[in-house]
This record gives sequence, structure tokens and C-alpha cells, in this order.
Amino acid sequence: MGGFVRYALGTALRAVGLVMLAFVLVAWAWSEDVRGFLLGAGVGLALGQLLRMTGTPKAEPRRAEGLFIVAVIWLLVPLLGALPFWVSGHVGLLDAYFEAMSGFTTTGATILPDFTLFNRSLFLWRGLTQWFGGVGIIVLFVAVLPHFAVAGRQLFFAESTGVQKEKLTPRLRHTAEMVLRVYVLLTGLAVLGYWLAGMPLYDAVANALTTMPAGGFSPNPLSFAGYPAAAQWVAVVFMFFAGANFLLIASALFGRASRTPWRDPEFRVYSGAFLAGSLLLAVYHVYLHDYGIEAALRHAFFQVASLLTSTGYASVDYTQWVVPAQAILIFLMFVSGSAGSAAGGVKSVRWLVMTNHVLRELKRTLHPNAVLPLRLGTKAVGEDVLRSVSSFVILYLFVFVLGTMVIVFTEGDLVVAFTSSAAFIGNVGPGLGAVGPMGSFAELHPLAKLVGIFQMWAGRIELIPVLLLFHPDTWRALRRSR
Amino acid sequence: MGGFVRYALGTALRAVGLVMLAFVLVAWAWSEDVRGFLLGAGVGLALGQLLRMTGTPKAEPRRAEGLFIVAVIWLLVPLLGALPFWVSGHVGLLDAYFEAMSGFTTTGATILPDFTLFNRSLFLWRGLTQWFGGVGIIVLFVAVLPHFAVAGRQLFFAESTGVQKEKLTPRLRHTAEMVLRVYVLLTGLAVLGYWLAGMPLYDAVANALTTMPAGGFSPNPLSFAGYPAAAQWVAVVFMFFAGANFLLIASALFGRASRTPWRDPEFRVYSGAFLAGSLLLAVYHVYLHDYGIEAALRHAFFQVASLLTSTGYASVDYTQWVVPAQAILIFLMFVSGSAGSAAGGVKSVRWLVMTNHVLRELKRTLHPNAVLPLRLGTKAVGEDVLRSVSSFVILYLFVFVLGTMVIVFTEGDLVVAFTSSAAFIGNVGPGLGAVGPMGSFAELHPLAKLVGIFQMWAGRIELIPVLLLFHPDTWRALRRSR
Ligand SMILES: [K+]
Ligand SMILES: [K+]
Repeated sequence: MGGFVRYALGTALRAVGLVMLAFVLVAWAWSEDVRGFLLGAGVGLALGQLLRMTGTPKAEPRRAEGLFIVAVIWLLVPLLGALPFWVSGHVGLLDAYFEAMSGFTTTGATILPDFTLFNRSLFLWRGLTQWFGGVGIIVLFVAVLPHFAVAGRQLFFAESTGVQKEKLTPRLRHTAEMVLRVYVLLTGLAVLGYWLAGMPLYDAVANALTTMPAGGFSPNPLSFAGYPAAAQWVAVVFMFFAGANFLLIASALFGRASRTPWRDPEFRVYSGAFLAGSLLLAVYHVYLHDYGIEAALRHAFFQVASLLTSTGYASVDYTQWVVPAQAILIFLMFVSGSAGSAAGGVKSVRWLVMTNHVLRELKRTLHPNAVLPLRLGTKAVGEDVLRSVSSFVILYLFVFVLGTMVIVFTEGDLVVAFTSSAAFIGNVGPGLGAVGPMGSFAELHPLAKLVGIFQMWAGRIELIPVLLLFHPDTWRALRRSR
Repeated sequence: MGGFVRYALGTALRAVGLVMLAFVLVAWAWSEDVRGFLLGAGVGLALGQLLRMTGTPKAEPRRAEGLFIVAVIWLLVPLLGALPFWVSGHVGLLDAYFEAMSGFTTTGATILPDFTLFNRSLFLWRGLTQWFGGVGIIVLFVAVLPHFAVAGRQLFFAESTGVQKEKLTPRLRHTAEMVLRVYVLLTGLAVLGYWLAGMPLYDAVANALTTMPAGGFSPNPLSFAGYPAAAQWVAVVFMFFAGANFLLIASALFGRASRTPWRDPEFRVYSGAFLAGSLLLAVYHVYLHDYGIEAALRHAFFQVASLLTSTGYASVDYTQWVVPAQAILIFLMFVSGSAGSAAGGVKSVRWLVMTNHVLRELKRTLHPNAVLPLRLGTKAVGEDVLRSVSSFVILYLFVFVLGTMVIVFTEGDLVVAFTSSAAFIGNVGPGLGAVGPMGSFAELHPLAKLVGIFQMWAGRIELIPVLLLFHPDTWRALRRSR
């Protein structure tokens, strides 16, 4: 293992260990079990410090090194974060790892069959894994992956084409800082909003921590069905922001007045899907006499925001809805949120690139010799970016289908297998049927849980860093940079 | 409408009219209703002759013209072919059109709730629509679409890169002729094989006509479950050939001895999926004690061949199988047969190109400046072909998902909607649940039937000619070539 790999991994483990040390105090103050946090803090700090000391910092890691570190951090940090769940004695190690992976990947799928098993510090820890996971994802999405030109991200976040030669500092660092400022600000506003809407302060904090990363863990076993209607409306607003491009929000808040989000093509697709899906669903519910107008609008906007952004909260058990209404939600789950957020899935901007690609090829069939540039709003999309994006979408499809096939063998249910796999790889959380928002993944076969852990991990970091772990060139490059 | 459009359309209608004239004799000889065939023959011959007379032949149609003709022929010929079903009085016009579209597109989805409604001449006609549809598809796939460089087909069937400048004659014409010779030969052998395996001669002919185009219509309401085991094994062999590349079979039969099919990358994927899927399914059935070893092998090979090649026959009602076994069949339905056959779907070779594309992009992430050519066996895949193929796969996904969404609204069942849409666009025929091989599409909402007609039509001619009907440049080009 290269020196920088050790250094970076050590830094991550030490940081998580520090947070767990703080949780020893929290649990102690609430007179709750401190053992798990103590163990986690000890392991994280000791192992982290050891790795850092034997490692070497580096300003500019090689690609293979950088992507290797990303994959390994997202595999090992959840293992450390699982210790408090496991030590509590209420869940086994596999379930604890599943829950922590679900946390750090901001998925929100739970193996908790019974919410009385966890105490308050465990629920707050579970929420905080999502909030920190969201920090990591946003830095990854707007700075690291664009820097390494992974999955077409260079298009969305690198304004100059020369980005591959630049150092990670200072522009990308500035971008990441600006986005994190928005993230922290919106989290604070969400706490305030939930509290004003009638939530107890503990719940307001625990839910706000999982709203902004589009996480979806809630300390309430009924999710948002357990809170007043006003809190549900507040959640709609913050979930919408959580799935929008944080850079756009930042430039709308702090930037020059001339840049309005409405001119951004991805924002138009994202907010268009949000509005169209919500209104269609609300009209459908009113037509079916399921709800009055306010409740129809509220549940429609809530569930659409929740599944489009891959948050996974529920204001009602939508597995009881008529099948077409559920199908709309699954569809939107695949549309997914913006590339500059912690939302999971393919991301709307990639579907937009694919749509423009299809339209251009149609035109090219008629005019084989014409020069037809591919555009995204005012930007030109290079052929290299197009290739990256199309291969990412196909790869996503492959991993999704393979996951579905394994889960259908262990669970014997097409809807459970299809929606579990979609919910894992898209970091959504709940699916339909037995794994719906009021159900849990507790009863899944251990093999299906392993598939889930793999899909949450791989889907979260956009597949490519994980698949490169299995590529011989990665290991060759790592040996060279030892 | 341009002169050549009229000429080509007239030629197609006249040809169908001629076949229907022959069916007047068949029905008369069997003392069955001749009215529908008489009407069809009259309309086909008169309208066809009129269009030909007012039109003008042309050696080299423009792209827009050529693709327009393809789309319109596959829309109107089934309307003409629906007349005998409609005039029989047993089905309405929409159902008759659905059945005829299902025939000419070699889909094999039926709206017949009760097989006693049709007499022998109607069943033979239904089978013959598939056989003629297969002829049209093979010419389209190995000569017309490669010539116009549609959906990447130039790679699979044009050996020189200068193909776009060549005339349709003589090499592509020669290719088409060679492939049709194989098609006719195999049909004859299938009649013989079925008859020797114990099928009555009428059934042997009617089934052979729908085996080679991967059609799937059978005059037996139980499909192949109504025939002896030996006939089922014979069907496995001919279905396997029906989904293989007919050009490969032709060159193995008539060509130089040096070219063996095993060196063809698509053939390896196709036969690998066939063998692996069949053996997995057989082992699973033996493990579950569903069948003895011979029956397990037979039903596994039969259903895998049937769904992989998009034929759609059934040797048993597989909707009664355990869910994972059904999932394997759905998966193979998407893998699909070879590009040089009348099989529907994406075609295995395109998945192979996509897999190589994904692997190359993974490697490119590590080596951004390396020159990494894309290969398919020994052939180099140009970036233009890659773009065509990736946009086709994405477009296929879009049309499949949109169809699923409409059908889920009318039918309220996720499995029915998903598998109907897949069976329509992939020209497979049966789906799962109520639309399984022993069920029918009779009870579908008229809107779902319209979606089915659209998906069978568009899927059959590889989507692009249909979508180009909605492109303004097509109409502009047609006006210019008036
Ligand atoms: K989530
Ligand atoms: K078929």
C-alpha cells in the first residue's frame, strides 16, 4: 500500500474516531451505553494515527491512487462506524455494517425491525453518519471526480478544459468550500424549520442531519408520517434543495446577480420532473378520492421530492397506494437528482446528455456527413464526455440488473428484488412491498444484504472507483507509486 | 408523397394482395370463409397497382425516403393483413390490427381469448404473416439498415467502410439472397423435423412458418405443450438457428470451410447465453424436484431458446414456475438473439459492443491520454458506430420504460406492464402473469393495445425509422424529392 494511501485512509479514520469520541460524551450525558463509541473512538484514533504516521502526504495523487483511496475509504469507514450498533448487542455484525454503510452512503435503508432497539445516541449517530457521508459525497462529486474526469463529471464541474493538468488547489478547493457552506447553512435552516413546524428539538436535529444529504434515516419509526403536516411541507422544501445543484444555490446566494438557476439545463429538468410528477400524482389522488386537495398535494409533493432526490422519507405508507401511483415514484427514482448534490442515482444531467445524444444520432441518420456538435445549454459536450456518460449509464444498468437477479433468487419476489436493487444502487433507501418505507430490510437473506452493501457502496461513489479495484492496471500503478 | 415512396408501398401492398389471393383458393378448398381474403386481395392488388402506376422506381433512394418507406410499409401492410381477421366477425378492428401487427412483426402476442374462434385458413394466414414478416426483417437487417448506417448496423453487415457510397446492388443484394436461401431451407427442414417428431402435417407447416422468423404463433392453444416431447426438442434446435446469424449459417453451409461460427464474437455470446441459461435453469428445476432430468433439460432448453430468440413458444406454462426461474427468462429476453436473424430486441452483439465500451472507459479513466481502440473480435469499431449503438440502446430503454408507464396505468399491475412492454418492443410475444404464454392480450385496455401496436411496430424496425417520422428533416427531405 502506497504511503499516500495510508496517509489518506488514516486521516479519514482519525476524523471518524474524533467524532465518535464526542459521542462518548453525548451518550454519557444522556446516561446511555458508551462502550461502542469508546471502542470506535479508540480503534479510529489509534489505527488512523498509525496509518498517518507511516504514510506520506502528497499534493497531487495519481489517478489510480486517488480512486483507490475513494473506494477504500467508503468501504472501511462504515466498518468503523458500525461498531456502536454492533456493540449495543441488538444487531449482528452484518446488520450493523449494513446499517452503517446505509448511513455513510446516505442511503437510509434500515435493518431495524423495531425502533425501540436503539437509544437516542445511536439514532443521533445514525443520522450523523449520513450528514458526514453527505459532506464526503459533495466534495467527491464537485472536486475529486471531476478532477479525475470520472463518469463525465469533468463536464459538470470543470469550467476550463485544462482541468486535468491543474492541481486540486485552489479553484476546486474553493468550489468544495462554497458548496459545503451551503450544506451547513441549509442544515441549520432545516433544524429551525422543523422546530418551528412543531417537531421536538431532538427530532428536528436528527431529521435535518439526514435531509440535506438526501439521506432519509429518521428516528421516528413512522418516518415523516409521525410528524405534523407543517413539518412535512418544510421537508418538501428542504428535500427539493437537497436534490438541487448546491453550486447553483451557492451562486444564487453569494454570487453575481446575473446567474439565475433557471438558465441551468439540469435545474430545468430536475425541477420540471419535480413539478410535473407532483402535480400528476396530486391530480390522480384527488381523482381517486384518496385525499382532500391539501393532503393530496402534500403527499404527492412529499413522496415525489423524497424519491426523486433519493432521500427516502415517507409522509404516508405509499406501498398502500394504487400501483400506477407507485410506478410514478419508481420512475422518478431513476430520473434522480442533480449532479451537484448528495443525491444518488444516475443524476438528471446525465439523462439530459443521453437525450441530446439520442436526438443528435437521429439527425445524423439523415445527415451522415454533417458536423453536429452536442450541446448542454450553452456548453459544448465533448465526445470524450459523451463516451464517459454513456458508458456510466450502461454500467449502472448492468450493476442494477445483476443485483436484481441475485436478490430475486434469495427473496423470490420480482417487485422486492427490482426495487431493492434500485434503492441500493441509487442510494434511495426504501423500495416497495416488504421493503417499503414502513418495512425494513431485516428479513432479507444475508446474501441479499451483502449485495445491498456492495450496491450502496459502489452506487454512492459512481461505480467506477469500485470497479477499478478489480482492474489489474490499478494494482500495477499502486505498486509503482509505493 | 414522393414517386418512389408510392412505388415501393404499392409493390409491398400488391405482393401481400397476391398472397391473399392464393388464400382465397386455400379457404375455398377447405370450404371456409373466403370473404376476408377476397377483400384483402382486392384492396391490396387495386391500391398496390394504383400506387405503383402513379409512382416511379428508383435505384438509389435517399436516406429519408428509404427509412420513411420502411416505417410506412410496416404500418400499412398489417392493416391490410388484418382484414381477414376483422371480416371473420370474431374480433374487432383494433384486435384484428393488433393480431396482424403481431404477425408481420413476428411478435406472436395474441388477442385470441379462445382458439376455436379462428378456422384453419385464418391460423395458416396468421402463421404466414410471420413468415413473410421474417423475410422482410432479414432483408431490412442485413441489407437496408446497414446501407443507411442505422443503429450501428453498418458494422455488423458492411465489410468495407465505403459502403455508404455503394449502391444497394450487387453485394448487399447478394447477401440478402444468401440469407433468404438459408431461411427457406431451414423452414423446409423444420416442417420435416416437426412432422417426423409426430406433429400432424398442418401443424408442422403452421409451426415451421413461425419458428424460423422467431415468431411464435402456434395454431395449438397450448403452444408446444400440446405436442410430443420429440417435437419440443426439434423446436429447440430450430429456435436456436432462428436466433443465430443467418449469414454465419450461410457461410458455414455454402462458404469457404475456413470460417467457423465459433470465431464470431456475437455467436459466442449468443450460444454462451443459450447454454449457460439453459443449464442453470435445468439444474435449478432438478434441485427443486420440479421435473425429472430429461424434462428439466427439455423445458429449460425450450424456454430459454424461446425467450432468448424472442420466439415466444412455450413447452409448459412457465408463469407457474418459481419466481427466480421466471426472472432468468426475462433477463434472457433482454439479452436477445443475433443481429443477422429475425429475432427482436437489442441483439446480443450490441450488448457486446456496450460491454467492451464500458471496459474501455474504465481503462481510460486510468490512462486518459492513451489511444484505446474499440474492438469486436478482429474488427475495429469506429467511434461513429459506437455512438450509434449507445444511442440505440438508450432509445430502446426510453421507449420500453414509457410503454411500461402507460400500460401500468391501464392495467394496474407492475409485472404485467413491465413484461408486456418488454414483450412488445422486443417482439417476443408473451409476458408473465395474465399475459403469459397460456393467457392472451384480449383483456388489455384499448390504450394498452395501441401502445402494444406502436411498440411492436417501432421495436421491429429498430425504432429509428419510426422516430424519424416525427423529425421535421424527414418531411423536408421528402418534399424536396417529390
Ligand atoms: K437516501
Ligand atoms: K416472437
